[in-house]
Amino acid sequence: MSLLVVGSVAFDSVETPEAKIEKALGGSATYCSVAASYFANDVKIVGVVGDDFGEKNIEMLKNHNVDLSGLEVVEGEKTFSYGCVYRDDMNIRDTLFTDLNVFEKFDPVIPEEMRNIPFLLLGNIMPSLQLKVIEQMTNLKFTVCDTMNLWIDIANEDLKKVLRRINLLVINDSEAKMLTKERNVIRAAKNILAMGPEYLIIKKGEHGALLFGEDKIFSAPAFPLETVFDPTGAGDSFAGGFAGYMTQVGKINFDVMKKAVIYGTSLASFSVEKFSTKGIENLSKEKIENRANQIIELSKVE
Amino acid sequence: MSLLVVGSVAFDSVETPEAKIEKALGGSATYCSVAASYFANDVKIVGVVGDDFGEKNIEMLKNHNVDLSGLEVVEGEKTFSYGCVYRDDMNIRDTLFTDLNVFEKFDPVIPEEMRNIPFLLLGNIMPSLQLKVIEQMTNLKFTVCDTMNLWIDIANEDLKKVLRRINLLVINDSEAKMLTKERNVIRAAKNILAMGPEYLIIKKGEHGALLFGEDKIFSAPAFPLETVFDPTGAGDSFAGGFAGYMTQVGKINFDVMKKAVIYGTSLASFSVEKFSTKGIENLSKEKIENRANQIIELSKVE
Repeated sequence: MSLLVVGSVAFDSVETPEAKIEKALGGSATYCSVAASYFANDVKIVGVVGDDFGEKNIEMLKNHNVDLSGLEVVEGEKTFSYGCVYRDDMNIRDTLFTDLNVFEKFDPVIPEEMRNIPFLLLGNIMPSLQLKVIEQMTNLKFTVCDTMNLWIDIANEDLKKVLRRINLLVINDSEAKMLTKERNVIRAAKNILAMGPEYLIIKKGEHGALLFGEDKIFSAPAFPLETVFDPTGAGDSFAGGFAGYMTQVGKINFDVMKKAVIYGTSLASFSVEKFSTKGIENLSKEKIENRANQIIELSKVE
Repeated sequence: MSLLVVGSVAFDSVETPEAKIEKALGGSATYCSVAASYFANDVKIVGVVGDDFGEKNIEMLKNHNVDLSGLEVVEGEKTFSYGCVYRDDMNIRDTLFTDLNVFEKFDPVIPEEMRNIPFLLLGNIMPSLQLKVIEQMTNLKFTVCDTMNLWIDIANEDLKKVLRRINLLVINDSEAKMLTKERNVIRAAKNILAMGPEYLIIKKGEHGALLFGEDKIFSAPAFPLETVFDPTGAGDSFAGGFAGYMTQVGKINFDVMKKAVIYGTSLASFSVEKFSTKGIENLSKEKIENRANQIIELSKVE
């Protein structure tokens, strides 16, 4: 089965209490597609970069068998660039700059031959663009969508339109509360499910993730890490691992999704161990599987 | 097997975004002993109250077979009284008043016939008093100890002495970080284990609890609740359920402790559903067991 990933491809400048990096590979579609590539054997990106993107980054994605025929390279322009600094507890990040560059005029046109792909992962981009993508697709079976606080704030109406067209939303706990104006995460989850998606994943960082749907709840722990080197991309790696596994299995039900959450958690834990996409670039199926088993083991009661 | 509980017995005035109550039964020893009574068939309290404590509260504890022969009633004086208000997200509480009353001169003397009890639960009281209790015990097999941010702040040296004499510490995640000056909870856990106790439970409220020991980690989810009516006593109910189950089984190992954490989580979830001790007063073994099974089910992966 094929998975289409639409999202940002970017350069990230990140400063954490542990270290600092400039102009490293980032973007939601980048993390998502690399993470998904360990499960789905056909992952395609639709996105845009400038002519400064560089052969090295193209090569890395190609090495993961990511189909880049939908990645537009705009000559004479620059790749989307983002800078942030994490505060001491790594839970809050302050944006330093957002240079949209090529991303400013990004209008995702899905190539004809990709429109009948059944599995779609909408990385965190403007909701109106996510809607445009959905409208071009002809054979959707399962659509996973990520979003962020910025869109809840400035594009609320569009986001709500998106929610009516997707199967599963991935969102942070603070964003879930913000979207629903609820202070309790379980009530927030119920409210979001009433807005459209049949399934919902609430990410809680170091506290793991909650999956809701079919009147059931699944709680996955996070993998315990002594050092979180760079949280950037953790959510995208999670979504990519999740959607990649769903695509690989091809069946849509709660039990498959539980395992997909575990694999997403495994990918996210590798992602935060290094800067940029370095943490998920050189994994093996065995490494991912071993960590997934450790995560399952964490909450196992005989 | 018998369990000795030493801690505060108090009147709590609590205001939450949901409701308000005044001079309701509270205190660490109260919650702990009622919660433990569903597991251990012999639970004894050592504590102190004033002559205003009231027959109704005595009756409630007696109905749970809690041995009150170690509960001193000081004539002409008042019971320890505490008032607090919870902020909107229920995670932060502001103290309104702390009237120590009889608690000011509390000097826990363990009755001769209770000194050889093997299971000890030290509820959250001043560390120097916890030390005094430990020093009177002659046959300890397993000591569980709770504490709070106040003692980390103003009685740090005494608390560290306590840590060298106990088997398991129960503590909040924010307090664990405060005690160790670590921002990462896994590193904080390692540091606390190096301070003395063989086992450690880090409570994370709505995010569940982590058990550390024997070079293993167990992660238990919280029971998902749409309404948290009153978080006061949740930690004490957890500790009581945990220690009560350990006493009932009588064996000290990681697998028994995992189940004890689940039962503690079950008791804590009932506790927050009502004000004061009302949520844990009228439970049955079946209700507790059903909820424990639901908690295990939450994280189960086939």
